[in-house]
Amino acid sequence: MNFSPTPASLPPKNAVYRFNQPKKLPVNYHPLNPVLFLLKAALLHPDKLALAHPDVPHPSYYSFAVWAQRTQNLAYALIQAGIRPGDRVAVIAPNSPMIADSYFGVLAARAIICAVNTRLRPDDVKYIIEHSGSRLILVDHEYTHLLDGISLPTVVCQDTGRAGDPYEDFLTSGRVFSRERGWPGLDIETDENQGAALCYTSGTTGKPKGVLTTYRGSYLAAIADAVESELNYDSVYLWVLPLFHAAGWCYQWSAVFAFSTQVTLRTAAPGPIWARFHAPSKPGVQVNPGRALDHIPAATHYCAAPTVQISLINAPEARRVAHGVKAIIAGSAPTASLIASLENLGISVVHVYGLTETYGPSVKNYSRPFWKDLSLEERSKLMARQGHAFATALEVRVVRLPKEGEAHDADLLDVPKDGKTVGEVVTRGNIVMKEYFNDPEATRKAFRGGHFNSGDLAVWYEDGTVQIVDRSKDLIISGGENASSLAIEQELATHPDVQEVSVVARPHPRWGERPMAFVIILPASREKWSEKALRPSAWVRAAGWVEVVSELPVRKGLELKCMLFQRRLT
Amino acid sequence: MNFSPTPASLPPKNAVYRFNQPKKLPVNYHPLNPVLFLLKAALLHPDKLALAHPDVPHPSYYSFAVWAQRTQNLAYALIQAGIRPGDRVAVIAPNSPMIADSYFGVLAARAIICAVNTRLRPDDVKYIIEHSGSRLILVDHEYTHLLDGISLPTVVCQDTGRAGDPYEDFLTSGRVFSRERGWPGLDIETDENQGAALCYTSGTTGKPKGVLTTYRGSYLAAIADAVESELNYDSVYLWVLPLFHAAGWCYQWSAVFAFSTQVTLRTAAPGPIWARFHAPSKPGVQVNPGRALDHIPAATHYCAAPTVQISLINAPEARRVAHGVKAIIAGSAPTASLIASLENLGISVVHVYGLTETYGPSVKNYSRPFWKDLSLEERSKLMARQGHAFATALEVRVVRLPKEGEAHDADLLDVPKDGKTVGEVVTRGNIVMKEYFNDPEATRKAFRGGHFNSGDLAVWYEDGTVQIVDRSKDLIISGGENASSLAIEQELATHPDVQEVSVVARPHPRWGERPMAFVIILPASREKWSEKALRPSAWVRAAGWVEVVSELPVRKGLELKCMLFQRRLT
Repeated sequence: MNFSPTPASLPPKNAVYRFNQPKKLPVNYHPLNPVLFLLKAALLHPDKLALAHPDVPHPSYYSFAVWAQRTQNLAYALIQAGIRPGDRVAVIAPNSPMIADSYFGVLAARAIICAVNTRLRPDDVKYIIEHSGSRLILVDHEYTHLLDGISLPTVVCQDTGRAGDPYEDFLTSGRVFSRERGWPGLDIETDENQGAALCYTSGTTGKPKGVLTTYRGSYLAAIADAVESELNYDSVYLWVLPLFHAAGWCYQWSAVFAFSTQVTLRTAAPGPIWARFHAPSKPGVQVNPGRALDHIPAATHYCAAPTVQISLINAPEARRVAHGVKAIIAGSAPTASLIASLENLGISVVHVYGLTETYGPSVKNYSRPFWKDLSLEERSKLMARQGHAFATALEVRVVRLPKEGEAHDADLLDVPKDGKTVGEVVTRGNIVMKEYFNDPEATRKAFRGGHFNSGDLAVWYEDGTVQIVDRSKDLIISGGENASSLAIEQELATHPDVQEVSVVARPHPRWGERPMAFVIILPASREKWSEKALRPSAWVRAAGWVEVVSELPVRKGLELKCMLFQRRLT
Repeated sequence: MNFSPTPASLPPKNAVYRFNQPKKLPVNYHPLNPVLFLLKAALLHPDKLALAHPDVPHPSYYSFAVWAQRTQNLAYALIQAGIRPGDRVAVIAPNSPMIADSYFGVLAARAIICAVNTRLRPDDVKYIIEHSGSRLILVDHEYTHLLDGISLPTVVCQDTGRAGDPYEDFLTSGRVFSRERGWPGLDIETDENQGAALCYTSGTTGKPKGVLTTYRGSYLAAIADAVESELNYDSVYLWVLPLFHAAGWCYQWSAVFAFSTQVTLRTAAPGPIWARFHAPSKPGVQVNPGRALDHIPAATHYCAAPTVQISLINAPEARRVAHGVKAIIAGSAPTASLIASLENLGISVVHVYGLTETYGPSVKNYSRPFWKDLSLEERSKLMARQGHAFATALEVRVVRLPKEGEAHDADLLDVPKDGKTVGEVVTRGNIVMKEYFNDPEATRKAFRGGHFNSGDLAVWYEDGTVQIVDRSKDLIISGGENASSLAIEQELATHPDVQEVSVVARPHPRWGERPMAFVIILPASREKWSEKALRPSAWVRAAGWVEVVSELPVRKGLELKCMLFQRRLT
């Protein structure tokens, strides 16, 4: 591949990788800030391949030193454009260098990055731009139509990495404006509890809410992601998850913390993903400006929801990877068949759980030594649990409110660790958002009892693992009893022939509501299933109705469910 | 092995691993505190072998859940004994469970642990106890003689782990005092910048100085140690380094962060160390109270100075380890022959650098992909450099003061990255001590220019790596020119026949001083050397005088040097 970064992207010979640190800071204190990871990477591994963007008409790739220079240029360009500390900068882009740059460059300018979901309708985008009070927009050329009727300073990126691209010219203007003051010309944000990223979630009702995270939380969450995913110098993190989702789950920072290479794909289609898995496995690729890159090394890590994983295993390109790949799965529990299919392809599964309000995943299903002696079905049942909180997070709890008249010494009481009693998942501490932006009422509600209340319902096992059974709104009221659609899904999902399952409530004349399960059967088992009765008694017992389908229908109930899944993802 | 912890060591069935968190804390904030690592380990891996103490008349071993209970008991026992937040608790012990407990239990009581070097003379110990204002002493039975003339509440540990041992009875009294309030009965230290550990260093002149570290720094340094040493669930960290040295370099916390097993050895003799390397390699050993432990798994990591490493490779027990061991080396640069000898034994080398003031090691020699193509001699020259700052530390710099009349915009100016210009090593930020305890004058001096001034002299290379050339006091003034004893040592140390080398200043009638090198030749090469001339011209050019010896003589100059090495180590 032949590509030269713009001249403004090349750092000076004696680049200094150090923010200006106000003298008032104690000698033994530096504010936690994920941009520091990139400064360190540029210092230690200046020529290592940091960011590659291969599957586009104009591929581009950057070493850590060049990437750091570009994010510095972006910071200066933003300051030149009038962005002040605490201002919001909106970014609307698919996975591509511009949005990756922004997670560092916007923070280097002490502004707040507001990455917008590209799948939203223009009026939702408009709401977010207005509610966030964004003062400038960085937009990819493919999404300019989302900005009709919005009159804000806007920089369009053609995603070429070449001079003449308005985004590149914006970076170059930042470099000129910097007058080569470099990183020491930029003040570090001294208050690590300031806002860093503002991510709007699609709630089940009402308008999107803006989750505001902090520098401190982003730094600590990113370290935990790296530790829990085992990212290191030899890793290549593939952007299947959209970078705009819940601040990329912090992986843009984690990967830099670990000195891993990142690869961005504009579209997460199975073909290009498999191509990345089957690339030559040569970690530690170095980039020398002016010399063509021989290859981008094979991906070793990616994050995605089960739906994406299923499309991967069913793709015609699917064949076993030799070097080992880690799939970080969130959004809903991986099924037994999904786990088996991925493992057969050389992909190991890490099941995580979290919400935008917890910096993306902050809970992990930790594997146990004794699992190696279990059957796939037994193991997948345990792997379906959400697990325990990440390394830098405080514990995750399952709680209930005290009953009227009950003696208690806390606002929230733990439910028994019996694997049966349902309570709400709560947590607190560094890996919880700062607030819902400009929405003190929603913040107060989410933080009642001094904890972040997730809205997810779960049981707690004796070993301290948490298992989500549902969101409160997903409970199906059947004959006065609560039936959990997620619990039914998880029960059905352990069946080796099941690829995907979704349970919704269906009105019932006698019971009010009854669960209705839609099931997709694995391609290899479909023939067998078409000959069989479609309602094995155990399934009907669990789910009431079961319908085998070839794709999950989008209807009222399911749409809601998909949104809920997405909420868990983002 | 047959061992049952005392009844008071066993956690209740529904143990809660959560400090009391005052309501005033924001929902999105929890103070960084290394004790949290143990609470998480006890929650996630309650039955995993956490701490083993094998080579004593009464071996003992504890799972994470039991160890957490014991540290909780210690916290309550200290509170019962009148210890209040910020009080100092002195600990005098070899590597053993009591001192390991104390790094968690003393902090859980919000007190400051002051671990004392067991090799000091009684009057130095007395000075430290008095200067630190310690209010209680935990002492191992072997070191009670160091406390003559000190009248403070003292708990003696017989290192048995059995009821009747005064230390065990102290823990039991703490459990009783707790009235089963458990962790929620203990307040977390809400100010993460409070003092955590107080470590006295032997300076080259004057009385020892007390380095005070913080909760925040300990938490972040411990994470960096785990990341930089690649500690994980399968690791077994062997305590060769004394736990009293510079707060154990934070590895007692790192290993728990990583869910590794720790093994304590009272004496770091080669025989017991090799026995630990050659133990069965079965990671993830679980401990069930009441059931005998089958074996303690083989050590995978240890920290030690080159001198200890040399005694290891020359021990009769030395034979290749099959499972891979990491030696973390600090104190002085590993020589080419040491690197080769260790690698031939299956032990890989991680060269780190730091001082007590930087939480032990905070700088690492990061390996480079192109090293695999280098000769051992070339590689060892690069590995002798101290390198770059750790993951959570700010960069390490080599600086000079502005010259008189020189225009400058900072108090400290970087020296050129030319590998030649000598400056002083400085750093700042979270991985720097809070202060010299009760010594504002020394603190002010160490923190001049808004940085911690290490007193170590170094050159800076173009790739950002730092290489120590000397301490200011070690410079040899020869004919008006500065000669660096460390640089000469490192030059001689690259010779494949050299095992150990030490350079001192020797008075010279004409030059004032000239360097004098003492060299130990590798056993396998000694015969060859006794036949050869002892002064190859290149060596003489570098060192002036060279003397081949069988052990490094202890004389005035060398004594100083050893102390300096120790200072770097501790």
